[in-house]
Amino acid sequence: MSPVIQPPNGTRDLYPIEAARRRFITEAWRRVSINHGFEEIDGPTFEHLELYTVKSGEGIVSELFSFRREGGEKDFALRPEFTPTLARMYAAKAKSLSSPTKWFTAGPFFRAERPQRGRLREFLQWNCDVVGAALPEKPTPLDVAAANTRADSEIISCCIDLLREMGLTAQDVTVRVSNRLLIADILEEIDIPRNRHDIALAALDRSAKLNEQEMAEFCRKQGLPATFVSRFNEFRKKYEDLPAVRGTTGQMLDRTRGIGSVLALYNMLTENGYQEWIEPDYSVVRGLAYYTGMVFEVIVDGERAVAGGGRYDNLIEMFGGPPTPAVGFGMGDVVLSLVLQDKGLMPTDAELLEIAGMRPDVFVISNGTPEADARLGGVVAELRRGGKAKAGDGVDTGRMPVPRDGVGGGLHVRRSYKATKKIGKLLQEAGDVRARFAVILESGTEATIKNLQTGEQDQSRTAIDQLAMELRKRLAVVR
Amino acid sequence: MSPVIQPPNGTRDLYPIEAARRRFITEAWRRVSINHGFEEIDGPTFEHLELYTVKSGEGIVSELFSFRREGGEKDFALRPEFTPTLARMYAAKAKSLSSPTKWFTAGPFFRAERPQRGRLREFLQWNCDVVGAALPEKPTPLDVAAANTRADSEIISCCIDLLREMGLTAQDVTVRVSNRLLIADILEEIDIPRNRHDIALAALDRSAKLNEQEMAEFCRKQGLPATFVSRFNEFRKKYEDLPAVRGTTGQMLDRTRGIGSVLALYNMLTENGYQEWIEPDYSVVRGLAYYTGMVFEVIVDGERAVAGGGRYDNLIEMFGGPPTPAVGFGMGDVVLSLVLQDKGLMPTDAELLEIAGMRPDVFVISNGTPEADARLGGVVAELRRGGKAKAGDGVDTGRMPVPRDGVGGGLHVRRSYKATKKIGKLLQEAGDVRARFAVILESGTEATIKNLQTGEQDQSRTAIDQLAMELRKRLAVVR
Repeated sequence: MSPVIQPPNGTRDLYPIEAARRRFITEAWRRVSINHGFEEIDGPTFEHLELYTVKSGEGIVSELFSFRREGGEKDFALRPEFTPTLARMYAAKAKSLSSPTKWFTAGPFFRAERPQRGRLREFLQWNCDVVGAALPEKPTPLDVAAANTRADSEIISCCIDLLREMGLTAQDVTVRVSNRLLIADILEEIDIPRNRHDIALAALDRSAKLNEQEMAEFCRKQGLPATFVSRFNEFRKKYEDLPAVRGTTGQMLDRTRGIGSVLALYNMLTENGYQEWIEPDYSVVRGLAYYTGMVFEVIVDGERAVAGGGRYDNLIEMFGGPPTPAVGFGMGDVVLSLVLQDKGLMPTDAELLEIAGMRPDVFVISNGTPEADARLGGVVAELRRGGKAKAGDGVDTGRMPVPRDGVGGGLHVRRSYKATKKIGKLLQEAGDVRARFAVILESGTEATIKNLQTGEQDQSRTAIDQLAMELRKRLAVVR
Repeated sequence: MSPVIQPPNGTRDLYPIEAARRRFITEAWRRVSINHGFEEIDGPTFEHLELYTVKSGEGIVSELFSFRREGGEKDFALRPEFTPTLARMYAAKAKSLSSPTKWFTAGPFFRAERPQRGRLREFLQWNCDVVGAALPEKPTPLDVAAANTRADSEIISCCIDLLREMGLTAQDVTVRVSNRLLIADILEEIDIPRNRHDIALAALDRSAKLNEQEMAEFCRKQGLPATFVSRFNEFRKKYEDLPAVRGTTGQMLDRTRGIGSVLALYNMLTENGYQEWIEPDYSVVRGLAYYTGMVFEVIVDGERAVAGGGRYDNLIEMFGGPPTPAVGFGMGDVVLSLVLQDKGLMPTDAELLEIAGMRPDVFVISNGTPEADARLGGVVAELRRGGKAKAGDGVDTGRMPVPRDGVGGGLHVRRSYKATKKIGKLLQEAGDVRARFAVILESGTEATIKNLQTGEQDQSRTAIDQLAMELRKRLAVVR
């Protein structure tokens, strides 16, 4: 035997249970996206390297898997995030797309960081984005701000509804909502000059990871006051008590500026029933360089980040499109899975396989006569392709919509591969794989259908050429 | 504006219609796999380079996208095919897996060949494999041959059933079935020594791409007779007329050898209703180095290869597992899509979006009063998360199974983003996106539900807090 070759560090082999777990999560992502009016798109798994070096910022670029095809002229990189692809795709078709365009995607992404609990080198990420806005012909700044508030609210709502659908509650989850415009206002208030704002954001982004001394050292090196972070934290508090801010400023706030846009968003999320989930927190700045306004982070149990996103109103234009407002978020599968498992919210293995559509409709058994033995393979094949019945006969299986007349309607059929002819053992095997029905072939052209969920046995036998139709009728009731 | 960055040559941007087309194909792959008793697995998108250099053969290795992480010790490659990953995964858990193990996967694969019609650098591929066999404790060669025949037959049946489900018929499709053991017998018959068999296979694999002169030249260089290919073709014919072979040899053929195993497979596929689709053709050898027995190729309209596969009984052992029989196939999405489009078998755009679950359940409209306007966002949000109704109330939506009590049941809800308050225009927009129902909010706490498929308007109004339940009842009927 040769030594077993290992999968690359930080990647996953998905055996059937892990694949069913992936399906559970990706289908929930898909269902919630669609319910919220997002349409699915996707891009290549690798892109030209320059797509990321242009605008994502150093945090991403240092973690790229990049490569060049032998003899090729350009470098490629495995995609570390989706936003640049989305911006490229939107820019390429901006003229023909509706306003707003609401897109989602879910697929593999790659970062060459050191693998650890909650972080892998290949992971799945779900992205939802609202790009563009329906505006009157000559929009006022307030029209723009209102459309942006609605888009920000839709993005945060969609993200929360996924977590709710997974069984998490506002007790588990905090959506920390921030805004880079408001952060800029606070920076001005504490006398950080405009040309130091970018580096101040970088310092704030790093503040959770560094201790006080390291932070002071970082600030000194970057030409920021050593007490910058604690000063910022002191000043931001007064804007985080929104009822107090509201009491001070009433309805008169300019919604096109930081605090006004924060209040407008908070109002809308409250009206729509999300107020328990959200919390203003202007220490959140997000690492990516391209964010321009609202940014948010979704934290479980006060420490585990499961999602994050924000507004990036300049990115479409940077990638060759017209000036276009845009907002979105990404949610990975790794931390989400760990959270669901830790909280007992991940379905059991049997439930996962059923949710993934893996529960057999029928298990076909011979009664052990040579005639039934000989017929077994043919009956299995016929039921798998839906029998001789035509579409419209009997009852639809209710699983996938049948794409067109005469197609589909096949059943999930299993059989034993063992040599045993004992019907009891074979029924046991049917039960072990959780088949809904067993069919026992007799020596004539008839068969007995047994409902394995109720244990009930049909009194009348069924002609073999009616089996598919009879099973479909019964399946429409039990599934 | 910056210039638009292009996607890498040979990759695809999937806008919503293209993504729905992908979903149509991948869900059909999934449905047919599951009906045939295969369980889903997956591996990493990139593997250690050595996984492919060991056994896939030169044809694959020359087309790899490979790379090395800066400072890393090992080279990686984007996966060009799935079989080595599957063999690695099976080998790692061989002891705990059932016999046979039936696995499928569908995902992105990568080849750095020159892009052309029907060939891309990133494509989707569906793989089904039967690995291992249920055998008595001391199996005879005939036991092994019988299990292999059944597995070969299951693999070919599953592949054909997908094409049938897509609307293709035996008039469009030919499954060219061959066998490397039988080819070896023919090579012996025409006096090619054992140690030239590998190169003879390579010559046969190339024969479709080279003209007569190039072929003769290739054979001469490789130490094969210049007339090798025409000689082989002459001899193979007599084994391709299976009824004649059967007449000559009767039931006495040794099924553990080439022609016997071909006849046994042909018999089983015939019994199971696939005889119109298959055709013996021993010019088929398949390019991959690891095949050991049955090999096949699926051709549409006599020239377009949509799928192929074969038996690889040594590969699991080469990757560190126990000696294990295995057989499988791969089908790409690119040629399949072209074939379906050319034959008018690809659903229309509207059908595709509906199949992909993209048809809205309900479009919510305000009647234009300030009270209804103010309530719109909240009603949309509530319906998207399934209303206040609890699971068990009313009727299940019938889409995904609800994973657990109190979760799920959200509806696909859209609204207008336009400024217009004209109900006629808004209903027009609801119709344009093909919503099944419209809900018109009134100034009180009531709403009117309109069935947009029948045009029928409910006579009685519905209380807003009953909307989710009332809509779910109606959706259970129309979907």
